Amino acid sequence: MLRRGRPGYDQQGILEVAVAAFNEYGYDATSMGVLADRLGLSKSAIYHHFTSKDEILERALDQALGSLEGVLDEAGAATGTAADRLDHVLRGAVRVLVEQLPYVTLLLRVRGNTDVERRALARRRAFDKRVTALVAEAQAEGTLRSDIDVRVVERLLFGMINSIVEWYRPGGREDADRLADDVVAVALDGLRVPTS
Amino acid sequence: MLRRGRPGYDQQGILEVAVAAFNEYGYDATSMGVLADRLGLSKSAIYHHFTSKDEILERALDQALGSLEGVLDEAGAATGTAADRLDHVLRGAVRVLVEQLPYVTLLLRVRGNTDVERRALARRRAFDKRVTALVAEAQAEGTLRSDIDVRVVERLLFGMINSIVEWYRPGGREDADRLADDVVAVALDGLRVPTS
Repeated sequence: MLRRGRPGYDQQGILEVAVAAFNEYGYDATSMGVLADRLGLSKSAIYHHFTSKDEILERALDQALGSLEGVLDEAGAATGTAADRLDHVLRGAVRVLVEQLPYVTLLLRVRGNTDVERRALARRRAFDKRVTALVAEAQAEGTLRSDIDVRVVERLLFGMINSIVEWYRPGGREDADRLADDVVAVALDGLRVPTS
Repeated sequence: MLRRGRPGYDQQGILEVAVAAFNEYGYDATSMGVLADRLGLSKSAIYHHFTSKDEILERALDQALGSLEGVLDEAGAATGTAADRLDHVLRGAVRVLVEQLPYVTLLLRVRGNTDVERRALARRRAFDKRVTALVAEAQAEGTLRSDIDVRVVERLLFGMINSIVEWYRPGGREDADRLADDVVAVALDGLRVPTS
């Protein structure tokens, strides 16, 4: 296989450095010149892999969104009660967040300023809708409490999950599985010990 | 009482317009000139109330922090089991968030770039520590499950609560009390309907 570009940076390697820079300085403030400096490459070497900065952003957001959508397409999201499937989806979303922390962080900062960003937000909304539908199904089958609006449930659940990007640091005491257990314990089973 | 400044804007009125501008354009991008334009005042009229833009920010953050700290000092946060007191604090935090949405939004965007911001972050951490201590007390008394690290519990709870600023719009179908009920229902009692 022909490896393009300078040794040490394939397309994914450039993407990783670019995403870190976007998260640190902001997308707008990160020029292709800044990226080239961080990579120790010429701008034309980057253009060999990506046609524009916008395309780098698009690829990065696609990676985060594709991973989240992938969770909904896993077998565990298709078998069992709707509550069990939601359990699987919440765990999967935490796992994606931890494993792809910089990519999900970038996704969560998108505000819809460009076409690429607006398409990413539309995909994110479609993902949220599928989760909301799962919550509605679980409420209808009687496995989840039905006294809370399904959209509020979905927002609170992903508010909790997404907030993890604010404080989670790889290599800390909480690994992805432990954190997924914690989130599911709070969200589905609650913190309170039943009194009776 | 002597009312200073142009009719229609007392100090609190200027603060409100300034906070809205900080949230819309960012603190750095909002100059005193921009504020004066939004208010229809001269810059010197603003300086009559505030010595600097930094002081406006300080006052705005103080309002959000003071309200949150106030919840911890309410009677309901001092009586009953630690779980009941936590219940009270979570409801109070949601109420503050809804009632002071622009101020809490501003607080949550603070990154510690100036002394004012760093002092605000230190106060916020002190608040979080008091909540974490309450969670620890509830775990010790056996009213809250103790298989999750207390700091992770506090972060997940306030991750969920703080995320409300992202989507809550005043006048929507969810009022503060309803939303507080929803948050407590998810966090303390869980969404899952017990199967046995």
